[in-house]
Amino acid sequence: MTDPTSTSAHERTVQLDKAHVFHSWSAQAALNPFVVAGGAGCRVWDYDGRSYLDFSSQLVNTNIGHQHPAVIDAIAAQAQVLTTIAPATANLARGEAAKRIVDRAPEGFNKVFFTNGGADANENAMRLARLHTGRDTVLSTYRSYHGNTGSAIVATGDWRRIPNEYARGHAHFFGPFAYRSEFWATTPEQESERALHHLERVIQSEGAESIAAVLLETVPGTAGVLIPPPGYLAGVRALCDRYGIMLIFDEVMCGFGRTGSWFAFENYDVVPDLITFAKGVNSGYVPTGGVIISDAIASDFDTKVFPGGLTYSGHPLAMASIVAALDAMENDGIVENAARIGRDVLAPGLAALAEKHPIIGEVRGIGVFWALDLVSDPETREPVSAAVMGRIKSELMARNLLPFLSENRIHVVPPCIVTDAEVAEALAIYDEVLSLDLL
Amino acid sequence: MTDPTSTSAHERTVQLDKAHVFHSWSAQAALNPFVVAGGAGCRVWDYDGRSYLDFSSQLVNTNIGHQHPAVIDAIAAQAQVLTTIAPATANLARGEAAKRIVDRAPEGFNKVFFTNGGADANENAMRLARLHTGRDTVLSTYRSYHGNTGSAIVATGDWRRIPNEYARGHAHFFGPFAYRSEFWATTPEQESERALHHLERVIQSEGAESIAAVLLETVPGTAGVLIPPPGYLAGVRALCDRYGIMLIFDEVMCGFGRTGSWFAFENYDVVPDLITFAKGVNSGYVPTGGVIISDAIASDFDTKVFPGGLTYSGHPLAMASIVAALDAMENDGIVENAARIGRDVLAPGLAALAEKHPIIGEVRGIGVFWALDLVSDPETREPVSAAVMGRIKSELMARNLLPFLSENRIHVVPPCIVTDAEVAEALAIYDEVLSLDLL
Repeated sequence: MTDPTSTSAHERTVQLDKAHVFHSWSAQAALNPFVVAGGAGCRVWDYDGRSYLDFSSQLVNTNIGHQHPAVIDAIAAQAQVLTTIAPATANLARGEAAKRIVDRAPEGFNKVFFTNGGADANENAMRLARLHTGRDTVLSTYRSYHGNTGSAIVATGDWRRIPNEYARGHAHFFGPFAYRSEFWATTPEQESERALHHLERVIQSEGAESIAAVLLETVPGTAGVLIPPPGYLAGVRALCDRYGIMLIFDEVMCGFGRTGSWFAFENYDVVPDLITFAKGVNSGYVPTGGVIISDAIASDFDTKVFPGGLTYSGHPLAMASIVAALDAMENDGIVENAARIGRDVLAPGLAALAEKHPIIGEVRGIGVFWALDLVSDPETREPVSAAVMGRIKSELMARNLLPFLSENRIHVVPPCIVTDAEVAEALAIYDEVLSLDLL
Repeated sequence: MTDPTSTSAHERTVQLDKAHVFHSWSAQAALNPFVVAGGAGCRVWDYDGRSYLDFSSQLVNTNIGHQHPAVIDAIAAQAQVLTTIAPATANLARGEAAKRIVDRAPEGFNKVFFTNGGADANENAMRLARLHTGRDTVLSTYRSYHGNTGSAIVATGDWRRIPNEYARGHAHFFGPFAYRSEFWATTPEQESERALHHLERVIQSEGAESIAAVLLETVPGTAGVLIPPPGYLAGVRALCDRYGIMLIFDEVMCGFGRTGSWFAFENYDVVPDLITFAKGVNSGYVPTGGVIISDAIASDFDTKVFPGGLTYSGHPLAMASIVAALDAMENDGIVENAARIGRDVLAPGLAALAEKHPIIGEVRGIGVFWALDLVSDPETREPVSAAVMGRIKSELMARNLLPFLSENRIHVVPPCIVTDAEVAEALAIYDEVLSLDLL
């Protein structure tokens, strides 16, 4: 491999990328990807030594920041012992990882099925719910993203579903989103009540006895950090109970510290039947994901064959990185930091920004999981254009901040280890860019 | 984590596994998984220091054997630089891995889309074929396995598809298998000819203009190492050309050295439109996979958005392991070794076994990819029972050989680095076990 410290490493990276790498969710010709040479903590840098404050956590996955030394050491140590082993074996790293995960899950969750990422975690959660209930349909919201594979992409509600509708047994409904209500609601309480009414009508109209699961991101992420309004998730739980439907919480993005708690649903005092995870569980240092299975569902498969599997299920290298990442989060107080930063620093800081800049239509979030909903008109709440967002991206990067942008929104999603000083630095950059004549 | 050298590590592994790990393709209650503490080359061992000759390559993935030092070092080195980065960036390890892969692919293949494994490689190949052709249906054989996710599991033809039929746009046909012909053929040539006739009739009956792709394992693996008969793959290529259908070769199990060549299709002088890979590309040391895309298909997406993606696409740690694994295979002559072992050692050795043991109905294979089709009656070719296979498994493991068994078959699938002495050792163990009174 090219010496990565050489001055030509940047050019070689660009040349190889253009020639041979096919990129996701993009047209390829106009791509000009940002070249990353390395990273540590909340920063990444290029080959010229220019460093950027990472307020994207990449795809909202590096919850412990880049290159946490304890996790890097654990990966190197496990690599010396055993990188890969078939899922049908028993492996200590896998058992230790599963134990670390169920120890943080609610009572009554004791088993973990490991996958390669979030999409196949959702695939297997849907499979479990269908086999447990003997029913077919999975309900999920239009404002959602659940992954890229056959059933996961159809469970997804956003535009990415539309060119990919190759699975059956899915129906979509509208979740609550008070700022852009689908229900003509004027308060969060009314939004919650009406969204629950709508969901119940969809359940009845699809036929309750056909519905295996309601699959929800506990806090929808890519769709805009849509904090559930008061009572909504408890109401969904009650509907699921009433109609014998399994409740799956997709905690792929919102789990493992992102909202300032181990699982996002802890903030809303609601327990699902299946929990899916990936990203934050090991900050993506090694590809992995999985499903945490409640006892009622797991026990179905004591004597019945579970018809799912994959070569890298419970991959030792990935498992060792989970063990080290969760231990580091515990030892370093990383989840508590995310909660404190959210409550004491980001909440007031972003509220002050919104006060100052009318382009910010709404600020919403929790922990280190926030969105600024940008509008060209605060009255009509018309989203700003793609051109404005393009300009914002360039201006933020010109000031050495790596942002996460989605549609008309800036998602403020730093690693959970972010410091007060780093938040202050980012807020000053957002402030400066939003002060430009953007519209 | 428990000290893995302690005498209690075995007990802790078993206890954690039983309590918290949900296993694939199984009923959970009766499981008694084999505990693996470590491995090197063609051997794995347990915590008591007992070692086993690995003639399974786990799930036929450790082509370079366990713990190849150059690849372990590369993983540790990349871990120090950058484990994870978003797919939208450009990254040197990713470009180098893509280049290593396309350098071994046929002319006219220049781009790689990376995934987490084989299932999502097939998912994305089917997506590319559908978007390229504007057609919907994917044809695949009943005797096949293409992965566990929504569309991949429905493309799969074997029993694992049946409880999982959640995707539309799939139809299945019979591939050639001369020993158990679906076409009343009596020679391999006749099997090939009739299987092609059958496929053409399925294409015509489904409606050629509706068919996006024929998806085939170049050499179907889990289904029994079904070596394509003379002219079959060339005939499929011709049918695809005649009807404007994309040909996808699933090289997840058979690629990267398994058949004694970089790609299995090189043995049959046929070039597909899309190639999927995983397993052997890095021996599974870090979860990864992908699609190698022909220029005609890739160029569609120069200006059109490709609607697929995943967080760990082109994951740097996985990419570094691909670079090191392919370099090691090149430097150590691992592919050549697989070819030589297949031709000079396994072919005559397994033929001699079959000569001696009437329970072996057929031996078939290439490189380090072989199956012994076990029958209770050589005339009727009646497969041996599950009880016989269970007995064979225990007897092989009692003699320190880790086998790969599927239905009524022993798959002889050692790492591509296997030595003459290791093959001799394994052949002696197979011989001893097949000499027992099994039926």
